This record gives sequence, structure tokens and C-alpha cells, in this order.
Amino acid sequence: MYIETINGPEDVKKLSIDQLPALAEEMRAALLKRASIHGGHFGPNFGIVEATIAMHYVFESPKDKMVFDVSHQVYPHKMLTGRKEAYLSEEHYDDVSGYSNPTESVHDHFTVGHTSTSVSLACGLAKARDLKQEAGNVIAIIGDGSLSGGEALEGLDYAAELGGNLIIVINDNDMSIAENHGGLYQNLKLLRETNGQADCNLFKAMGLDYLYVDHGNDVADLIQAFQKVKDIDHPIVVHINTLKGKGYAPAEQHKENWHFSGPFHIETGEPLYEMTEEDYSDISVNYLLKKMKEDPTVVAITSGTPTVMGFTEDKRQEAGKQFVDVGIAEETAVALASGIAANGGKPVYGVYSTFVQRTYDQISQDLCINSNPATIVTFWGSVFGMNDVTHLGLYDISMMANIPNLVYLAPTTKEEYLAMLDWSIEQTDYPVAIKLPGGSVISDGKEVTKDFSKLNTYEVTRHGSRVAILGLGTFYGLGNEVAESLKKENDLDATVINPYYITGLDTKLLESLKKDHDIVITIEDGMLDGGFGEKIARFYGDSDLKVLNFGVRKEFPDRYDLNELLKENHLTKEQIVADIQALL
Amino acid sequence: MYIETINGPEDVKKLSIDQLPALAEEMRAALLKRASIHGGHFGPNFGIVEATIAMHYVFESPKDKMVFDVSHQVYPHKMLTGRKEAYLSEEHYDDVSGYSNPTESVHDHFTVGHTSTSVSLACGLAKARDLKQEAGNVIAIIGDGSLSGGEALEGLDYAAELGGNLIIVINDNDMSIAENHGGLYQNLKLLRETNGQADCNLFKAMGLDYLYVDHGNDVADLIQAFQKVKDIDHPIVVHINTLKGKGYAPAEQHKENWHFSGPFHIETGEPLYEMTEEDYSDISVNYLLKKMKEDPTVVAITSGTPTVMGFTEDKRQEAGKQFVDVGIAEETAVALASGIAANGGKPVYGVYSTFVQRTYDQISQDLCINSNPATIVTFWGSVFGMNDVTHLGLYDISMMANIPNLVYLAPTTKEEYLAMLDWSIEQTDYPVAIKLPGGSVISDGKEVTKDFSKLNTYEVTRHGSRVAILGLGTFYGLGNEVAESLKKENDLDATVINPYYITGLDTKLLESLKKDHDIVITIEDGMLDGGFGEKIARFYGDSDLKVLNFGVRKEFPDRYDLNELLKENHLTKEQIVADIQALL
Repeated sequence: MYIETINGPEDVKKLSIDQLPALAEEMRAALLKRASIHGGHFGPNFGIVEATIAMHYVFESPKDKMVFDVSHQVYPHKMLTGRKEAYLSEEHYDDVSGYSNPTESVHDHFTVGHTSTSVSLACGLAKARDLKQEAGNVIAIIGDGSLSGGEALEGLDYAAELGGNLIIVINDNDMSIAENHGGLYQNLKLLRETNGQADCNLFKAMGLDYLYVDHGNDVADLIQAFQKVKDIDHPIVVHINTLKGKGYAPAEQHKENWHFSGPFHIETGEPLYEMTEEDYSDISVNYLLKKMKEDPTVVAITSGTPTVMGFTEDKRQEAGKQFVDVGIAEETAVALASGIAANGGKPVYGVYSTFVQRTYDQISQDLCINSNPATIVTFWGSVFGMNDVTHLGLYDISMMANIPNLVYLAPTTKEEYLAMLDWSIEQTDYPVAIKLPGGSVISDGKEVTKDFSKLNTYEVTRHGSRVAILGLGTFYGLGNEVAESLKKENDLDATVINPYYITGLDTKLLESLKKDHDIVITIEDGMLDGGFGEKIARFYGDSDLKVLNFGVRKEFPDRYDLNELLKENHLTKEQIVADIQALL
Repeated sequence: MYIETINGPEDVKKLSIDQLPALAEEMRAALLKRASIHGGHFGPNFGIVEATIAMHYVFESPKDKMVFDVSHQVYPHKMLTGRKEAYLSEEHYDDVSGYSNPTESVHDHFTVGHTSTSVSLACGLAKARDLKQEAGNVIAIIGDGSLSGGEALEGLDYAAELGGNLIIVINDNDMSIAENHGGLYQNLKLLRETNGQADCNLFKAMGLDYLYVDHGNDVADLIQAFQKVKDIDHPIVVHINTLKGKGYAPAEQHKENWHFSGPFHIETGEPLYEMTEEDYSDISVNYLLKKMKEDPTVVAITSGTPTVMGFTEDKRQEAGKQFVDVGIAEETAVALASGIAANGGKPVYGVYSTFVQRTYDQISQDLCINSNPATIVTFWGSVFGMNDVTHLGLYDISMMANIPNLVYLAPTTKEEYLAMLDWSIEQTDYPVAIKLPGGSVISDGKEVTKDFSKLNTYEVTRHGSRVAILGLGTFYGLGNEVAESLKKENDLDATVINPYYITGLDTKLLESLKKDHDIVITIEDGMLDGGFGEKIARFYGDSDLKVLNFGVRKEFPDRYDLNELLKENHLTKEQIVADIQALL
């Protein structure tokens, strides 16, 4: 096996060009086996095997620096840069992260997990190189799907001005996670169809030099192209035409499903584990499709991740014009929602907590200053969400809940979520966001009669004294468990409160607690800094009540162990009870 | 005078095309007089007078909806939509805001002040129109300078997919606030030079239909063009070639200086009031130019507002390759800074507080997860900054100070600022941001010997007991005044503390205060929610100390009166002292 001889890029260069296709096949076989057992990003990596080999054959990493966008497609690069064991040996599968990672290797320059950043980051590496008057190539590798993001387009525009060497490899597999959306993809198609010869050329229109490689999975062609642009003295785009999922028939045929996969049977592509539990994606799409049929002005919006709200291909067809995928373009998604709401439509934008960060200014300016009644639903904003450092869902409260005019709601059950969503869609006064709880869906079957238009009205769900527990969203249940323990251990009847509203204080209720309570505790599913609990602490700052805030401390944990994280942050029932008892 | 007869768009239509140039001249004369007395955005409005007349001549506002990007260029539109008195009568100059404003008129659809939003917002209006199966044109008017922003490029890309009617007017005056930066401007130039005929066309490459109007200040040509695209059934770009500052010689010649102007002598263009006071822009540019000469890896970065850090044209030339203007592209500015720092350069990105909002995700992901040692300096993040609702500087603490890994510093004097800046540039461990204080520059001439690498170490500058005052940044001086008053009125020696660090707690010092203090107060220059004071309140939540937080409540005030705002938020010495006395 060739792959077993590769301990770094220098070993790739020892092979002849004739041997490289065999290396590619070996890498693909290893990737397939690993994915079938371990899961991970699939399609993006299968398409870029040959390009990665060719780059390491031609360029001299780490002197020449490669920046992989999103870094979903960084597995082949890791295999060739001293980390092959993590792909060849099952016991080492977890030795590496799923993204580029400077702590793993000198061949990785950034920890990257959000899209559309590579060109601008690479411009920075190149600029520093030139300021230091050093030599070397800087190569940004970006998938076509990432091109629609604002930062990528800004970066392409700026790159033309940079002056020195910069090579931008456009890995064009004609797919985003789902199909691409946006006018620029017509131009990529035109360029593919004309072997890169069409006069109308997005990259040239951005001021960039351009080279097209039609056989983007042919390692010899790629080597030739990279040799041509190596040490070039100005920025150039190398547009390579690749096949997403290349080499595994199910993935070539069903590209969207195979962008990311869990463990599966290699022979059939069928998943090893059936996901049967109802989740908030199913709940959202079922509600929205029904609502759309009743009201033609209801429209669901996604920014390149349609299944976050459950809109698989068949559901998208069912929704028709009432479903919009703007492509990876979160800023436009929020502005679009604001515009639709301003003109009497009823938009619902569903987005992962980690990606809603990409649109702070649009939420503040385009939406909230204008008080337009759009709805944003944030998914996986929870310690129970993704645990890669680049995809954490711990920050949406501090980011969003401090934006004026926004009503940010935290349901604790499926029923509350649907009641909030329905209220939000029908009301016309406020921009509203809903933070879905983490963990398994809780459904208590109770009818929700609360009028959410009475802003910032919390609900006492268990009446007691001395200790009041505000359990926000995900952690409302934990709040109840704490109350149970206090009853059992201290014969103390604690008050339990469902706050519902992250963005405002129920000052009347909070004031009333002063009468017969000594301690107020808050539990929230996210970072403490800038969070919900701190507002409660501020409210009681000049009173005799003691306040304890529970949540996650400010940091960027990477691939954390959930139970450890909870323990470290005193987010277990036992710890919270003990902390309260210490104060009693 | 024609302008006196115009009470709405319907009155524009009553004039003959021959009469419209005279109307344009009258409007320009009124704009000139108003600007000379009142100040405001100048160049952008002077260039778009004819286009605005032509649009109102051809389209039927408000059924047809115009969305002005940034809305710096909205004055002529306001003159033609029932608000002419605000431009003709000195006593009514303040009746209108400087931006489009739905509360003023049904002809305005959004409050807009940040760039690059119009296309995406207009897409939303158009989408809602189509969902409601209504008719009407939607027109986005965007300046060439705004095109480099990510949201604008995302919007152009998405617009091609929208399907129905959308008209995107590109007001191309070949200028941003300063000169344009980015490769796409070469393409605009090519299009201007070829009368729109060049095959390589950015807008067509984005999938859009395209029409070019060479005489963008010729009202008859414009009317013809708009008539051609009115009621079109798909999105189209109308690219109009205009002259920034058109009709006023000093403004035509010095476009950058005349983007915005204070009051001036009409005859000479000389400003009425001399600005002689040293400000943080001067301080920054003087320091940085000196530093650049000592160290070729120091590089200053701006995103389209070079003078925020004092880089006027001559200073930009002096800095040479050590000054980078990425154009209006804040996301790329931060990513670039991160990349430069990752490769051993020393980047300093200067940005207005209100615009740093546009790059939350890049600060979090591209910069802070990677812990690259770039420096961001935020200007005008203060109640003493801009007071238009779209340009407030009240939110940067809640946005930035809760991002893990970032060290956000609050200097209280010029000397502290320079010491922090110098430390930040030379250290290699942390991403650092510096929040400049508002109001007049305070310089005490004291040498700053503090070692800022000892993170989160506050300084007690006045030793006392019972009451401790944490005066952050701008309001450190107010903290001292409060202490003086307490001494005078209550014979109480309060402790005064300069926290320096917004992003972390000096737990040792805070703990020590418990010994002999009863009350801790915080004063910060920004919104309370998610701010510095709440972290202090959380820290003392389980203790007997009382905490009072002073800052601005969460809202979007518009064109506020500074003294009223301070009073409403208890940010005067008298109120703070009274609040403390009530607790003593």
C-alpha cells in the first residue's frame, strides 16, 4: 500500500505520477471504511482526494500554505500530512478533529468550521508573507457551495487588490450541502460547459486571473495545472470540476444525503442506526407545511441547511414557492425575512445556533431597528448540541438576547414551541426568535393557553418559598428536579418558574419573590457571560436576596465530554442542590 | 420654483420632461444651502438628484417600492415625497432624519444606515408581493461603494433566483467614502468604458439581466431607461454612471472630503468651524506611522473608513503597503487581520463601534477560536458618539466582551490607550480589542507602567471603604467625581477602581472588597444588558455586598439628546450619588 508509506508531503513527492491514482484509491477505501464505522463529512472529502494529492505533490507545505474552507474536505489533507493513522486504524479514528486544526499539525493554519472564510484568511497569510518579504505560495481551497457567503465574495473582491501570490482553488462539485442556490451557479455551469472559455466569468469580473481544469479528479491534469500557477506573482483562481462523493455509488447518486453521514453498511449505504425519535426538525416541518396550506404568505427560509427545519427534498417540493433556500448566505436570509415581514408576509427562518452568529448586524439593523415581525428559530443552541469548537451552540443567548426590540423565547416542551411559533407567525408587532431546547423532545400533551403578547411574563409552576428556581428552556426540567431534591433532603418547598422570555425581566414577579424568598437561582443552557442569569443578578443587586447563576463558563471547549462539561459547570442536580444548601 | 409645488410623487409626474432639469437645479441649490448651514451627507445626494426625479416620474411610489442602500443618498427622495420643507426652510431642517425612515413617510420602507443591505431587503419586499399575488415594482438603489459588502454580494447572487420583478439600480459614481477598493471596480470601469457592452460583466455573471445608462445625471435618459424596465418580470440591474458631488465644484473635485460635510462657506467650500482639538484618530495615526517605520510587519486595516484611524490620503501614501483598505467589507477585514497575525504580522484594524457589529462571526471564529494576536480598535463606542439609531455605539461591549478568548480593554486616557495599543501589537498570545473612550481626549501625561499581559488585573486608584466604584473607560472620571461628592456630602472615603479589562473579572481584588465594603457600583459607557456591570453583579450574587450597575438601558434611541439620555439612565454624578446614599 502506498498510503502506509506517507508520513508527510515529502513522501507524496517520492511517488511517480503514475502511482498517484492508486494512492487515491487507497485513500478513498480508507475514507469509506472509516465513514461507515465512524461517520463524518463524506461527499466533500471524496471529491477532493486527487486535488489534495496533486497539491501536496506540487507545493511545499508548510512553507506553501493551504487554507481549506469550512474544512469539511480536509480529511485527505490530514492523511497526507502525518495523520494517516486516524484514517487507517479504527483505534485512532478519534485522534483528529473533523476540521483543520493547527494544534494537530504545522500543515494546518486555522481552526475553521464555518464556511466562506478561506479566501480572506489566506489573503492575510499572503499579506504577512509579503510584509516580511518572504517567499511561498498561499492556496485557498473553497467549495462552490461556500462561494455564496458574504465573506467569500468580499474576499474574492479584495484578493484582486492583494498584489502578490495567491492561488484560489474553486472545488466545484456543483453542490452545496443541498443543491446550490444563487445566480452565480449559472456562471459556474457556463464555465464548466465552455471548458472555462466563456467571456462572462465571475472571477474575471472580480478582477482575478483564471484557469480551468475540467478533469478535477484526474491527478495528472491537476498536477499540471498547479505546476503552471506555482509561484505566480498575482492572485489566480484555479477552477476545478470535481464529483462530490466520487468513488462511492450511493454518494455520487444522492449527494445531499451523503454530504455528512452517520455509520452505514458499505454494501448498501443503509444507515446502521435508525433515527426514529421525533425531533424539532420533524415538528417544525410538519407544523409549517400545514400552516403554509392555510396561509399562502407563510414562507420558510433556510441558508443552505434546509433539513435543519426538516425540509428534505420532498418537503421542499411540497412547500413550493413558500420555501426559500438563499444558499449559504445568512445575512441575506435575515434581511429577506425582514423585507418579507415589512410587506405583510410571514417568514420563518430556521438556523443552527452556531450559524446565526453570522448575521448579528442584520438581526440588529435590518430586522430589530425596524421591528419587523419575522420569526427566527435557532436549533441546537445547547450543551446537548454539536461539540466541535467551531460548531458550539453556547453563545446565542449572549449574542441575540441583548439586541434591543428582539423577543427571544425559550420553550421547554414541544407544545410550548408550537404555541410560540404560531403566536409569532400571526403577530405583527415584534421580531421574535425561538431557542429550541436541547436533548430529547419533551412533550407533555398540555394545551398552552399563555398569551405570549404579554411580553416578559414568567409563570410560577410550583409555588414555594425561600428558594426560587428559574429554569430556562432546556433546563426547566432540571429546575424541577432540584426542587424535588430540596423537598426530599431539606423538606423545603422551592418555587419553580418557567421564564419563557430570555430578553426581558418580569419585574413584578421578581419583586414579589423578595417577600418570602432568600435565594433565587437561574439555570440556562448556554454561556453565563452576557446571559439570562446575569440580568437576574443585576435586578437583585441592591436587595438582600442571594442569586446563584448556573450555566456554562466563557470559553471555547472542543469536542467536550457532555457529562464532564456539565459537572465542571455545576450543571447537575446534585451540585446545584449542594450549592443552594451551602447558602441556606 | 417647481420644487415648491411638489408635495408628493404625483406632482413630479405633472411636470414635463423638459421642466425636470430645472427641478433638479432647484433641488441641488436647496441641498447646497442646507448642507452649508446644517451639514450632512453631501456627495452621495448630489449625484443622485436626477435619478431620484426619474424614478418618481416613472414609478408609482408607494405601490412601487424604493429601497435606498445606506440611505445616505435619500435626501432628494425625501424632497419629492412630502418632506420638502425639511430642505427648503431652515427652521424645519431637523424635522427629518438623515436616513430613510418609515415613521416619516409611506414612501420609506426601512430605517437603514448600514451599507449593503438594500438588495436583500428589496428581495424580501418582492417575495412578499409575489406570495400575496400583488403587482408593483420593487427597486433597490445601491451605490457602487456598497457593492463590496458581503450582504450586497449575497443579495445580488440570491436576487437572480427570486423569479419576479426586481430592479437593482447601481448608482456608480466610482467612489466609496474614499476611493473604491476591490477587483469588482475594474469591471465597473470596463462596463463604463464600453457603454455597458463588455462581455465580462459581474452582474450577468451573478445571473442577472443588465442595462447600462451612461448619462446617469441626464433625467431624460434615465426616464427612458426606467420606462424600459418598469413592470419587468424578472430581476434586472440598471447600471447608471453618475458624478458624486455633481453641481458643486469643490465636491466634484474632492469627493472623499465631501462625502459628508459639516457647515461650510458656500463660496469657498471652507468649513465654518475649525476642528482643532486632538482626537483619537490623530493619536492613532501618529502612533501607527511611527510604529510602521520601526517595524515593517505593522499594518493598519480599514474597511472603507480610512479616516477613522486618521489615515487621510497623505497618511495613506506615507504608510504605503502597511495600510490596507479592504473596501466596505468588515468580515474580510477581521479575517485578513487574523491571517496576518497567524503568519507573524502585526495588524491593527480600526473600526467604528456601530460597524464592528458586522463581523461578529469572524471575530468569534476566524480570530478568537484561533487566538491570533490581532488588534481591533473600536471608535465612537460611546453615548458621546453618533446618535442616529442606525449608528449608535452602545452595543459593542455586549457583543464583543462575551466572545471567549478576546481581551477587550477600556483605556481611560490617551496614555493608557497608547500603552495598551503598543502592548497589544507586540504580544503574540491574544486577540485584543481596545474600546476608545468617548468625549474629549483626556491626557494626564502619566507614564503607564502597567503590564497588560497580567490579564484581568484591575487597579485601585483611590483607597477607601464601604463604597467601591468601578469606573470603566469613559466613565472612570465620573467615578472619581462620585467619590469626591461622597467625601464632601457624606464624609465617606470611597474606593475607586480602574478595571481596564472589560472581558474578565479580577476575582482576587473583588473578593478583597468584601472585607470592608458594603456597596460596589459599576459605571459603563454602553448598554447594561450583557455588559460589564452584570458580570460584577453575578460575582457578588451570593454575597452580602450590594451592587448597583449604571449604564444605558436596552433600547434603540434615535437622535437622542445626550443630557436627557444620561439623566434617564442615572448617568449623572448627582443621580449616582443619590442612588448610593439611598442604599447606605
